[in-house]
Amino acid sequence: MSTAGGAEATRERILAAAFTEFAAHGVAGARVDRIAQAAGCNKNLIYVYFDSKENLFTRVLSGTLATIYGDLPFPTRNVAEFAGRTFDFAMANPDMLRLLAWSTLNEQTRYPPDRLATHATNVDRIALAQADGAVTDDFPAEFILTAVLSLTTCWAPAMPFGLSIQPNPTVSTAQIRESVVRAVAAMLGERIPAQ
Amino acid sequence: MSTAGGAEATRERILAAAFTEFAAHGVAGARVDRIAQAAGCNKNLIYVYFDSKENLFTRVLSGTLATIYGDLPFPTRNVAEFAGRTFDFAMANPDMLRLLAWSTLNEQTRYPPDRLATHATNVDRIALAQADGAVTDDFPAEFILTAVLSLTTCWAPAMPFGLSIQPNPTVSTAQIRESVVRAVAAMLGERIPAQ
Repeated sequence: MSTAGGAEATRERILAAAFTEFAAHGVAGARVDRIAQAAGCNKNLIYVYFDSKENLFTRVLSGTLATIYGDLPFPTRNVAEFAGRTFDFAMANPDMLRLLAWSTLNEQTRYPPDRLATHATNVDRIALAQADGAVTDDFPAEFILTAVLSLTTCWAPAMPFGLSIQPNPTVSTAQIRESVVRAVAAMLGERIPAQ
Repeated sequence: MSTAGGAEATRERILAAAFTEFAAHGVAGARVDRIAQAAGCNKNLIYVYFDSKENLFTRVLSGTLATIYGDLPFPTRNVAEFAGRTFDFAMANPDMLRLLAWSTLNEQTRYPPDRLATHATNVDRIALAQADGAVTDDFPAEFILTAVLSLTTCWAPAMPFGLSIQPNPTVSTAQIRESVVRAVAAMLGERIPAQ
């Protein structure tokens, strides 16, 4: 293994360990020595590579956002079908939603530039789809973006009104998914997509 | 002023200072010495009264939840009208939403018994309203509760998909409110309430 490869591998191990630590404990609660232990490296090396705990958080968050935006580009038609996929993603990746929720509450990390840029792009895409008649113009584009993302992720345990209150609901995950899709379809006047 | 009255006043000052500190920084980030300074009391007194920072957080959270549940009982008819009032409340009380969001992410505080009890009561009330035909039975009662609370609060800065990304939207607060009410009405098949 070359030195460069070793350093790169160590950085990746630190980022993976940091993701787990930050998702569990947030910025203030995270401990750099626990990250170092999980990554199997010296604590000082983390500061050499990433400068500070806050910078490391921002790096982890940016990587997570890139994954989310890459996997789930906001659609310009069939938003209800997207709603089902976003629900599946949120339920399959609870720690990504936790990281997002922590970042929102942290004054230093709540406005990452890449989030705002992607948000603005998505608003523009929805507005164009509305002009084309592919998405309803009953609501402002910004409203549709925020409402759909909120409604499709609100059952993730990181969010305050679903499983975080009642972890054992009487409805199945499949029933919740089907309800999410139908709710978005009703809101936007779309047909319910085939399963 | 009697000693008892003085002690009660000091407890109230501590709880008020703790609300501000916890809303800003969460459980891990909150500092008991800052709470003591803001309340104008000795730090040790906080431990005498409230035992630990975590217990103090739980007390503050319970008080906040009692306020929210008292001001906004989930309705058994006209849910869209309730949606508008809940939106107003969330926008007027950003720190209450922050406290709720922090509590959701903290493993030790995420399942307070009073939250679960009120949640269960609300599910039962919605189910009864569905049986009476006053609320749609297109969706399970649990889904309606979680979806409506999520959709009506998602613009609070504590939540990850609205103002926390874009604090200066091109739509006005009044437009967002009107959209929230219409979205809930569309979802539940209700008439749009008069403003």
